[in-house]
Amino acid sequence: MRMRNKPWAMDFLSSNEDIVDVESRYAGKIDEFFVKKQPLHIEVGTGMGTFITELASRNPDINYAGIELDKNVMIRVLEKVRELELENVRLLLLDANKIDEYFNEDEVDRVYLNFSDPWPKNRHEKRRLTFSSFLDQYKLILEKDGELHFKTDNRGLFEYSLVSLNQFGMDFHEVILNLHEDEPEDNIRTEYEEKFSAKGNLIYRIKASF
Amino acid sequence: MRMRNKPWAMDFLSSNEDIVDVESRYAGKIDEFFVKKQPLHIEVGTGMGTFITELASRNPDINYAGIELDKNVMIRVLEKVRELELENVRLLLLDANKIDEYFNEDEVDRVYLNFSDPWPKNRHEKRRLTFSSFLDQYKLILEKDGELHFKTDNRGLFEYSLVSLNQFGMDFHEVILNLHEDEPEDNIRTEYEEKFSAKGNLIYRIKASF
Repeated sequence: MRMRNKPWAMDFLSSNEDIVDVESRYAGKIDEFFVKKQPLHIEVGTGMGTFITELASRNPDINYAGIELDKNVMIRVLEKVRELELENVRLLLLDANKIDEYFNEDEVDRVYLNFSDPWPKNRHEKRRLTFSSFLDQYKLILEKDGELHFKTDNRGLFEYSLVSLNQFGMDFHEVILNLHEDEPEDNIRTEYEEKFSAKGNLIYRIKASF
Repeated sequence: MRMRNKPWAMDFLSSNEDIVDVESRYAGKIDEFFVKKQPLHIEVGTGMGTFITELASRNPDINYAGIELDKNVMIRVLEKVRELELENVRLLLLDANKIDEYFNEDEVDRVYLNFSDPWPKNRHEKRRLTFSSFLDQYKLILEKDGELHFKTDNRGLFEYSLVSLNQFGMDFHEVILNLHEDEPEDNIRTEYEEKFSAKGNLIYRIKASF
């Protein structure tokens, strides 16, 4: 999600260093960033942060790290974390390509991908967050039974991802091809999900492990 | 697909023994049933036979065995094979549970499943043609690079099958979640597919191997 550039964004994020890690200060020791030591779930690409902040409100006994590369977007997430006074959410201004440098092996219990950029052109396949190089990273940082939860309304990306995850050798636990029909109680709609579902788009979801 | 019972059906099928095998006479030696020795593709559950007869017309250098348990339905397929004078289609009145007894190991080059009965109740899972016991059979009779091609408009069955095939360890080659958008030239619509697509149902397809 692109936002208008805010020249003051980086200063603002840096001045909130109790919540945002802009320079990977906590790489390899993210436990120290949180108030409590408890299971760690991450969202790669937070967008505006409705998902991770609502999830964190519902699950105070889990730590959530939200990863986002766009500082203009991250400001919105930061505002939500402040407003809700969430102790169990921390934000990492980080390229998704570097999560294996940030987290330790087996340190993460779950990875969420929500409405990731579809990169529809074949030549951009490597940028999709379900491309094998990203799966390599998730596999490394996830503990043995850790799960990847991925949802999208982009048919091409979901078709691609089903094949990519399968060919990587991942175990599918659940595939849903119309999430909002009989919507699970625990589903948290992202801003994007709300908007595109209202337009009639189907929402797809998969849960899988390595 | 259920048809009105025709008391004369079995006699009629039996009297066409050059095309229909009602008693598994060619079990273990299906090559002898065909005019030419060439690659063998099978369809498990032919329905009315539009798919297999059209496919066979387009591909005279492949042999097609259509498997159907319902003799009243098979009559319709037989009529099409006769009308089109297809030398490369043979019909087997056979329970899908017995295909591993009928075919030899590695004898089949492709298995088609089209709009199979969804058996939506959990207690009927074992009857679904993508349940593991059926996958065991396909794996046995398919040659090493042989593919399973499965299409359906039933969302529940397709979701189930994606998980079932994945958990069986199959390799996905392609998944399509709306086959009739940018419909591949080689797609042959079954009677059922035509009807339910017109009602607005999405058509799903997967190609996978063992």
